[in-house]
Amino acid sequence: MPKLRLGMIGGGEGSFIGGIHYRAAMLDGDYELVCGAFSRNPNISAQTGKRYHLNPNRVYNSWETMLTTENSLPMHERMEVVTIATPNHLHFPQAMAALNNGFHVICDKPVTISLEQALELKETVEKTGLVFGLTHNYTGYPMVKEARKIVRSGQLGIIRKVVVEYPQGWLTTPIEHSGSKQAEWRTNPDINGPGGCLGDIGIHAENLAEYITGLSIEYLCADLTSFVPSRKLDDDASVLLRFKGGAKGVLYASQISAGEENALKIRVYGDKGGVEWQQMNPNILVLKLLDKPTQLLSAGTNQMYLNQQTRLNLRLPAGHPEGFIEAFANIYGNIAARIISYKSGDPLSEHRDFPTIDDGVRGMLFIEKVLESSVSKTKWIPFQ
Amino acid sequence: MPKLRLGMIGGGEGSFIGGIHYRAAMLDGDYELVCGAFSRNPNISAQTGKRYHLNPNRVYNSWETMLTTENSLPMHERMEVVTIATPNHLHFPQAMAALNNGFHVICDKPVTISLEQALELKETVEKTGLVFGLTHNYTGYPMVKEARKIVRSGQLGIIRKVVVEYPQGWLTTPIEHSGSKQAEWRTNPDINGPGGCLGDIGIHAENLAEYITGLSIEYLCADLTSFVPSRKLDDDASVLLRFKGGAKGVLYASQISAGEENALKIRVYGDKGGVEWQQMNPNILVLKLLDKPTQLLSAGTNQMYLNQQTRLNLRLPAGHPEGFIEAFANIYGNIAARIISYKSGDPLSEHRDFPTIDDGVRGMLFIEKVLESSVSKTKWIPFQ
Amino acid sequence: MPKLRLGMIGGGEGSFIGGIHYRAAMLDGDYELVCGAFSRNPNISAQTGKRYHLNPNRVYNSWETMLTTENSLPMHERMEVVTIATPNHLHFPQAMAALNNGFHVICDKPVTISLEQALELKETVEKTGLVFGLTHNYTGYPMVKEARKIVRSGQLGIIRKVVVEYPQGWLTTPIEHSGSKQAEWRTNPDINGPGGCLGDIGIHAENLAEYITGLSIEYLCADLTSFVPSRKLDDDASVLLRFKGGAKGVLYASQISAGEENALKIRVYGDKGGVEWQQMNPNILVLKLLDKPTQLLSAGTNQMYLNQQTRLNLRLPAGHPEGFIEAFANIYGNIAARIISYKSGDPLSEHRDFPTIDDGVRGMLFIEKVLESSVSKTKWIPFQ
Amino acid sequence: MPKLRLGMIGGGEGSFIGGIHYRAAMLDGDYELVCGAFSRNPNISAQTGKRYHLNPNRVYNSWETMLTTENSLPMHERMEVVTIATPNHLHFPQAMAALNNGFHVICDKPVTISLEQALELKETVEKTGLVFGLTHNYTGYPMVKEARKIVRSGQLGIIRKVVVEYPQGWLTTPIEHSGSKQAEWRTNPDINGPGGCLGDIGIHAENLAEYITGLSIEYLCADLTSFVPSRKLDDDASVLLRFKGGAKGVLYASQISAGEENALKIRVYGDKGGVEWQQMNPNILVLKLLDKPTQLLSAGTNQMYLNQQTRLNLRLPAGHPEGFIEAFANIYGNIAARIISYKSGDPLSEHRDFPTIDDGVRGMLFIEKVLESSVSKTKWIPFQ
Repeated sequence: MPKLRLGMIGGGEGSFIGGIHYRAAMLDGDYELVCGAFSRNPNISAQTGKRYHLNPNRVYNSWETMLTTENSLPMHERMEVVTIATPNHLHFPQAMAALNNGFHVICDKPVTISLEQALELKETVEKTGLVFGLTHNYTGYPMVKEARKIVRSGQLGIIRKVVVEYPQGWLTTPIEHSGSKQAEWRTNPDINGPGGCLGDIGIHAENLAEYITGLSIEYLCADLTSFVPSRKLDDDASVLLRFKGGAKGVLYASQISAGEENALKIRVYGDKGGVEWQQMNPNILVLKLLDKPTQLLSAGTNQMYLNQQTRLNLRLPAGHPEGFIEAFANIYGNIAARIISYKSGDPLSEHRDFPTIDDGVRGMLFIEKVLESSVSKTKWIPFQ
Repeated sequence: MPKLRLGMIGGGEGSFIGGIHYRAAMLDGDYELVCGAFSRNPNISAQTGKRYHLNPNRVYNSWETMLTTENSLPMHERMEVVTIATPNHLHFPQAMAALNNGFHVICDKPVTISLEQALELKETVEKTGLVFGLTHNYTGYPMVKEARKIVRSGQLGIIRKVVVEYPQGWLTTPIEHSGSKQAEWRTNPDINGPGGCLGDIGIHAENLAEYITGLSIEYLCADLTSFVPSRKLDDDASVLLRFKGGAKGVLYASQISAGEENALKIRVYGDKGGVEWQQMNPNILVLKLLDKPTQLLSAGTNQMYLNQQTRLNLRLPAGHPEGFIEAFANIYGNIAARIISYKSGDPLSEHRDFPTIDDGVRGMLFIEKVLESSVSKTKWIPFQ
Repeated sequence: MPKLRLGMIGGGEGSFIGGIHYRAAMLDGDYELVCGAFSRNPNISAQTGKRYHLNPNRVYNSWETMLTTENSLPMHERMEVVTIATPNHLHFPQAMAALNNGFHVICDKPVTISLEQALELKETVEKTGLVFGLTHNYTGYPMVKEARKIVRSGQLGIIRKVVVEYPQGWLTTPIEHSGSKQAEWRTNPDINGPGGCLGDIGIHAENLAEYITGLSIEYLCADLTSFVPSRKLDDDASVLLRFKGGAKGVLYASQISAGEENALKIRVYGDKGGVEWQQMNPNILVLKLLDKPTQLLSAGTNQMYLNQQTRLNLRLPAGHPEGFIEAFANIYGNIAARIISYKSGDPLSEHRDFPTIDDGVRGMLFIEKVLESSVSKTKWIPFQ
Repeated sequence: MPKLRLGMIGGGEGSFIGGIHYRAAMLDGDYELVCGAFSRNPNISAQTGKRYHLNPNRVYNSWETMLTTENSLPMHERMEVVTIATPNHLHFPQAMAALNNGFHVICDKPVTISLEQALELKETVEKTGLVFGLTHNYTGYPMVKEARKIVRSGQLGIIRKVVVEYPQGWLTTPIEHSGSKQAEWRTNPDINGPGGCLGDIGIHAENLAEYITGLSIEYLCADLTSFVPSRKLDDDASVLLRFKGGAKGVLYASQISAGEENALKIRVYGDKGGVEWQQMNPNILVLKLLDKPTQLLSAGTNQMYLNQQTRLNLRLPAGHPEGFIEAFANIYGNIAARIISYKSGDPLSEHRDFPTIDDGVRGMLFIEKVLESSVSKTKWIPFQ
């Protein structure tokens, strides 16, 4: 069976996320990149196509052209699935057009720039029946999946407290005014959408918490700040959470935590024990059961004490670190399995989960509710 | 010069904190324990006096008797300073009586069980002019003092964000019903006062944050929970903070974080860098300056890069871990220096700081305001 | 420019290292796998070819056939470079034949099973002028390259002491008798060669030490053990080292260190400071300069304090962990650059280093000398 | 019962170890310091006596005078036990005289400066029947005792490999020539004895390994170096070990490992698992059992999974760090229990172990054999 034929929108030279999507797609050999509209700038698009060894005929300067042109190619040749690696405001039109042209979609987060768009997109996904994967990549880490299995198995008892934090420091100074492309668009509401730090990383924290615990936020109370003068969007967010069923939570995300890199961390406590996972040390899951020594569960295909799903999302035995790209590639691999299942009609293994449009909708709701809370005098805002 | 003559109220066999106060007083040889009213139970008091090698004549069954009897002894013999190591509701009457009998006081926290009491006690401290030290012991850690110096030197720039957390797990189950004396009184509002987890450890977190940063809380928004059914006091507290001047904060304390031991941790971020300190790894201060490698400042009398005050609160060269008792002993040592200065009239070195009645008042205000916020529908409660 | 056309010998389903070579080649898109002789077992070879989406015509059951058949294909179609991912005893004949058929070679370590073979192979490499890369993959880690730059810049002063350790525990029990293919051949001298633990991981330690420091071993004194009864080869090796110029070293490798995973670690001390790197936490380099706080250098394309070479061997900004496969892929990428330079005649960037046949020869000498020392009554064995 | 009456020889102001002995004796209230001959310099001795609040009548300028004068005091007043905290060459004459004057002895390590002296001292200890404790303080750490219990319980199976390392960096430069008193005498063979780094810290490593494992060294092979030009004694030692029964070991100690503080670490591997302990993180014992998650055993009086002896050598619940002085105080406390048992005739609890003259003899043998090996051309030197 040939590799899945992938196209990419965005991700031209200079992009942060483009190279990650590419490598995540390449790593396990499931995908072949066959075409791309990497940039509106023809030179950049051509340059990127060359770097990726593409046939120049399949390097486009416009994503609209790419979608229609590829749609007209013979079935066995045309792109099957498209990755959307553009700034946020383009996700919605591009995903809509891709689905309407019959392509499966892998879309970067946040899925859109409004809840309304997200809901409309969800309708289209459901109508077309095509596969839609959202790269909330941190849920691709094997030990996050292990945490989820442990929590859901009841090993920690009834969940009471969730603490999820995501401090970064890269926006400590106003680098959007000194040439950082990444910072420029992320601090521009028209391109980024209304949630700054919130939309960039806050929703990763929210997604991770709900993914691992299976709990749903019921109320929240938030404080957003733009610490850097002249910055239009929030660069720091602190949120108190109340989950359905009685658990409580603290979530915070920050991009002005000077000196922090990408320190996503989650702790979940039940009445029998707790788990802790840190993105910067991703191959260890800390398990603390009442009155027992702390246990360090270590990632590895040979670790028989891990859940099977965890091991299936690993490539290497213990002690051989897998990292960010491997976790991202798990999302790609599980989407590939879903597409193959779609094509073959064979059922999909339960171990092949990935974030979908539902995660996208939930993330947009989170952004809207936190924004609402932040300017409200009322303490608790319902999450609905 | 002879050692300072110390007496102790409370701290009988079975007490957690009594042995700590004793060792903190003994460690550096500044104090001699000369008397004690360790318990209302004469057997326990006698037993404890014996363990501490006291003259049986100076082991009392009642603190009231101890205060008056000692007061009648000759000046060169009588107790000079008294440690109050009793459950919270006794702090106020005992401290008042001790001061009114002319004794300096070292009091465990929380200083009282209400703000009103704390304010009255403050008046008495000021009126008598005696020394009053409060064992907010975490500020006795040398690397906490280093953090304070760094923040206040401006090395981190303008402070924007403070995250202080204090998870414990020891009250995850209702051990107050199965014989734990420590848990029993701490979950009894009459003895403990109205703030459970809040009053036991939440105020340590508050005190640490204000000690290091010098910032004052201006508003807060809190969520308190009693997770364990039938428990009368909170066992979990999450608080959003706004400081005067614009900094924001997240504070949480919890005693149902299953598997956690005594994981007090603080992070402070300015616009030039951040610092991080963890009580369970207390000899390292993590310093993160923008665009520089992370630095691990290591405690040691021989570490010339540390501030002088830090080194003066250390006993050993780097690599020889000092711990909880040593930090507690720094409080005792600095109070001793203050008492000696009181007696001699010599000025006190600026390096000899310790928590005072003002910290106590502030802690009681914190408890009252968090309790108020927790049941309020208004989001931000002023801190005054 | 098209991708480099890669073939693979060995690495059939069930192989540990085959999948790593494949992913290392795929990750950055430099190579396309065009053919393979994955196993003598036609089913396994076919199965592996299918998993890698190969044209069945280019899946071979014999590596000899593959080399001659590919050699007869048109230039623009035929394999250009071959990866040898077979057990050790096959490296020599396969590499010789590959070179003699005009193919560049990427060979797993140890390069051969004797020093004599290694020297003969070196002659052939030099005679053919083809590119020969050896996957001493740990030198592909960016922070290993940073350590090398720091040491060689003189920042640590004159190097005095090197401690390199490589404990594993996977051969603690005689799993070679209970179905572990990996253990079976590695404990069989005919297939593995004469150095057990020594040849499997000891030479990684030796290679890492010489790579980072630039020092050459002058004398060694070794103690080899086969702890597991009936095991024919060493499973534990401890070696004292003396380097030319006066530095000393301790090297140990072990596969019976129960509970250890893949804990390669190196420390290098000069008269001005030291560095420390651990494979299981590979994105941090610990730098300890005299009288300064310990520094944690953190991997990241955005870390401007790192040497340029280090950043060129990274893909992601700080805080996004890269791992084992990424380091392996650096070896592949740098070999690709070398092959492209070979084809184009353009000079190769100095940042594109990779282990060569010289590392292979040195490793085989190390194995022979440690074996000699281990049975000798003389303390110091010259390393030549 | 009154406190034990302690005297001290050496440990005057400026001494490193004097203050540690003092605090270790004070911490738990078992001892009262009643007299001292802190220095030959009367001013220093007086100054130190004052700092320790001694009666000036019992501050001596000569240890000989102290021993005889104290011996002539009434039984209930005179010193009962003497701490020897002087440079190494004085340990022997002082300990001999103390014993011969009827005093129990607590002696710093190394016990003497030759094996011959150590054996003679052992004879005197046995002849007098007095208590002799040697402050190999690292065996006082509770988690070292836990490691010992675990190893000896057989939980790790048959012990195969021991790795013990003790890197320090404080003698990286020739500070003995720039005013460091500590460095001066430690690099002077007449005062320090013949083993430099070896006698200062190498014997701690040796003692720790034998204490935990119960194994006896049978052969060794060593390489000693004086890296700093003009230094007369070794500042770096690397040793291969063979234990009776077949286990192997690597031991190294170094004082030129620039940037290291006091990084004593031991790992012990059996055929069922391993343990790891680090002095700079002393409250955690890492336990790695085959095919199980790594366990972090945490020190705490409330940790019921710990052995009883471990908990009896702790003062605080988990999460409240105990450190170097507390471990040292365990030695003092256990010696106190032994002296009380001596006085009362009551049996001593098995949990009250401490290093004795036998550890001292073994340490001196270790120094002599390593020195012999270091200059020998024979590989293995018998340890006897």
